[in-house]
Amino acid sequence: MQKPSLPKGTRDFGPIQMARRNYILDQIRSTFQLFGYNQIETPAMENLSTLTGKYGDEGDQLLFKILNSGDYLKNVSAEDLEVGASATLSKLSEKGLRYDLTVPFARFVVMNRNDLTFPFKRFQIQPVWRADRPQKGRYREFYQCDADVVGTDSLVCEAEIILMIRDVFAKLKLTDYSIKLNNRKILTGISEAIGAAGKEGPLCVAIDKLDKIGWEKVQEELIGREFSEDSLKKLAPLINLTEGFEGKISFLKSFLANSEVGLQGVGELEELALILKGMGENLDFVDFDVMLARGLSYYTGAIFEVKVNNASIGSVSGGGRYDNLTGVFGLSGVSGVGISFGVDRLYDVLEELELFPEGSVQTSTILLTHFDEKGFRYALSLLQKFRKASIKAEIYPDLSKVKKQLDFATKKGIHFVGICGDNEIKDNLISIKNLETGDQESLTIEAAISKLSQPAV
Amino acid sequence: MQKPSLPKGTRDFGPIQMARRNYILDQIRSTFQLFGYNQIETPAMENLSTLTGKYGDEGDQLLFKILNSGDYLKNVSAEDLEVGASATLSKLSEKGLRYDLTVPFARFVVMNRNDLTFPFKRFQIQPVWRADRPQKGRYREFYQCDADVVGTDSLVCEAEIILMIRDVFAKLKLTDYSIKLNNRKILTGISEAIGAAGKEGPLCVAIDKLDKIGWEKVQEELIGREFSEDSLKKLAPLINLTEGFEGKISFLKSFLANSEVGLQGVGELEELALILKGMGENLDFVDFDVMLARGLSYYTGAIFEVKVNNASIGSVSGGGRYDNLTGVFGLSGVSGVGISFGVDRLYDVLEELELFPEGSVQTSTILLTHFDEKGFRYALSLLQKFRKASIKAEIYPDLSKVKKQLDFATKKGIHFVGICGDNEIKDNLISIKNLETGDQESLTIEAAISKLSQPAV
Repeated sequence: MQKPSLPKGTRDFGPIQMARRNYILDQIRSTFQLFGYNQIETPAMENLSTLTGKYGDEGDQLLFKILNSGDYLKNVSAEDLEVGASATLSKLSEKGLRYDLTVPFARFVVMNRNDLTFPFKRFQIQPVWRADRPQKGRYREFYQCDADVVGTDSLVCEAEIILMIRDVFAKLKLTDYSIKLNNRKILTGISEAIGAAGKEGPLCVAIDKLDKIGWEKVQEELIGREFSEDSLKKLAPLINLTEGFEGKISFLKSFLANSEVGLQGVGELEELALILKGMGENLDFVDFDVMLARGLSYYTGAIFEVKVNNASIGSVSGGGRYDNLTGVFGLSGVSGVGISFGVDRLYDVLEELELFPEGSVQTSTILLTHFDEKGFRYALSLLQKFRKASIKAEIYPDLSKVKKQLDFATKKGIHFVGICGDNEIKDNLISIKNLETGDQESLTIEAAISKLSQPAV
Repeated sequence: MQKPSLPKGTRDFGPIQMARRNYILDQIRSTFQLFGYNQIETPAMENLSTLTGKYGDEGDQLLFKILNSGDYLKNVSAEDLEVGASATLSKLSEKGLRYDLTVPFARFVVMNRNDLTFPFKRFQIQPVWRADRPQKGRYREFYQCDADVVGTDSLVCEAEIILMIRDVFAKLKLTDYSIKLNNRKILTGISEAIGAAGKEGPLCVAIDKLDKIGWEKVQEELIGREFSEDSLKKLAPLINLTEGFEGKISFLKSFLANSEVGLQGVGELEELALILKGMGENLDFVDFDVMLARGLSYYTGAIFEVKVNNASIGSVSGGGRYDNLTGVFGLSGVSGVGISFGVDRLYDVLEELELFPEGSVQTSTILLTHFDEKGFRYALSLLQKFRKASIKAEIYPDLSKVKKQLDFATKKGIHFVGICGDNEIKDNLISIKNLETGDQESLTIEAAISKLSQPAV
């Protein structure tokens, strides 16, 4: 007899985990909808031609590929075997599992460009798969939760992303976090200002490690990438800017005085702040970080990253503006901006900070219990009355010891049991026992329904 | 430049389809929860050892297999190539995509048997993948929507499945349908009673085609499978039984008088009817069909199948009791019963019968529009006030012709636009226009919020 197991890096979600995950996703979904985003879904499988070349060489290696159906070896020759996997992949596999939600979204936009109404605001909550080495907090199947708007370069979209993050976090009762904000144009401007024009790529890669390895090591890496001592000296004042938003803006206006693109980035940030103010909002939780890069080369404007300060896990959300997402599929000139929430990381944060609400376990409100066949039949006669009043209710379905039934309720997190004994049957009542407080009262069925219909305390 | 496409048999779901699918899934989910079922999810990928051998040879062929990562050809020899796919599969692939939700659920139960509280009621709503030839209504990726309870043989579970089907269909406003009901033990009893004991397997396979090919062809097939003329003569009276539930029960009591297992099946159906009656319910929509088999060999007790009578599509839901689902993974003695709703088929039925509610397109309630920069800023100042009142609201994010903004609202199915022109700015008002009726009125922002907070008509 085989002992069943799961593929490494994958997980089951049992009832409690699912209820908690749904709690997180419900908050995110309602925020996305409040801001006018519509949900879409794309298939798990995409053609490899859609996926490959979009995530760099490393990403291509991490794609899960689907073996062609039927006699998949019929086109493989003995010579192919000697060359190995690289020679044969295209003969064995034409499809792969999606690696993120961004590339499938770009494909969706291009394929449906004539039917969509632009600006198109979509959100998408689906699993993605990566053949990464599994480790704590890193899985081979995990959910992404993305909202993007494409077809406009209005900075209102950036403002709304900040407001959506604040809305989600407020709903999740997260109060100590930072929305790190930067603009790719500022990074480009900085590379110009330090005399390393056009090298913002390696600059960003190195700076992205600042938090992890520190300024000394970042300098070493930059020198290794042929940045001059002079460049590093010019860069230094930016590393530990302590001013607030206004102070940083004014510092950059002089620092980037000779970089047109850099000043443009500064201007976008100023306009963003103005829009928020015009909306009756402010920059609460926003932390302008002139060094924020996120290593994602396709960002062309705003860059976001959200960190929960009082939890051991770091970034839980990130995003930015990109000017040519759909270009690779033949549709250029579509600017977009998006945000992605990491559900697994938010889960870990809420667990660490004990922020999951009591009621987030989606279990029955009441379990009807019984001592014998007569009580069982009586309980059955009441069961549907609770449900018809929209009260989640179940009956212990077998004749069984009361202790076993109470244990069942406790283990499932059911707060109330309805006791159906001889006294209750005689008086046409039901005794409702609160398993947490131990309180018990005998009620008519109508009174019991009324009691349980009130929102849980 | 590549022209992107989708793998055959797969689909994108755009905003309208998603909203409608969510409408269906929300009804099913709320019913499952009302009856005490808890949601779980399992990974898309399972080890091939978990999947193979569970769906017959044909099913094994239809599994989507994942190519191993890295140099997947290193163990394949030139000799393997000559034998072909069958020799090499185990060397190339260790994982596959789930084919249904039942086998992963069985694996879940076995792996978590020490942590679960039995009877365990779970529901699961996830996609499955089959490398079937795509055709109208048959996809390679589709959602299943299953509820099962394991660890009890109480017939209360069967009664509740009938009630759940009725509850879901009532919510979906489906009023002309049949819950076909049978019991595998009755089919076993019938094979005994017609002198073909032990041959209920082929009997079921043939009878399952009754609707499609008719009684003549079924007889031919049975003769081909070595059923005697005498058996067929004895079987004939069952083919077109016209009595109601009670009449069929009483007919079977005499027809199956010499079959212990057959009478047991009849007894279970009687008890099921009694339980429903004891719950204050009835057999509405239930159609006892002594020939219902569903071709699924693992059913051991009740068998369900739901058909919508006034739609061109047939079966939209089915299920039954199985006594040894987890046996193959080393845990025997776990009886269970379950029901599965076909989301794609329900979608097609609701579309055909025009039963999707107006409001099932989850779009914004209001779009704020503007004529110029000044109006844009004014609209921005109002936008968050709607959202803070939980009204789904958006602004057209670019300065643009009003006609374009109105078209945008119409195409997205947004019912109201909020006009922010010079007059509105001067008087600190907003004009709310209903795009369906053309009605327009100028309101204070508080009055506008109050108007839009009322449930849609």
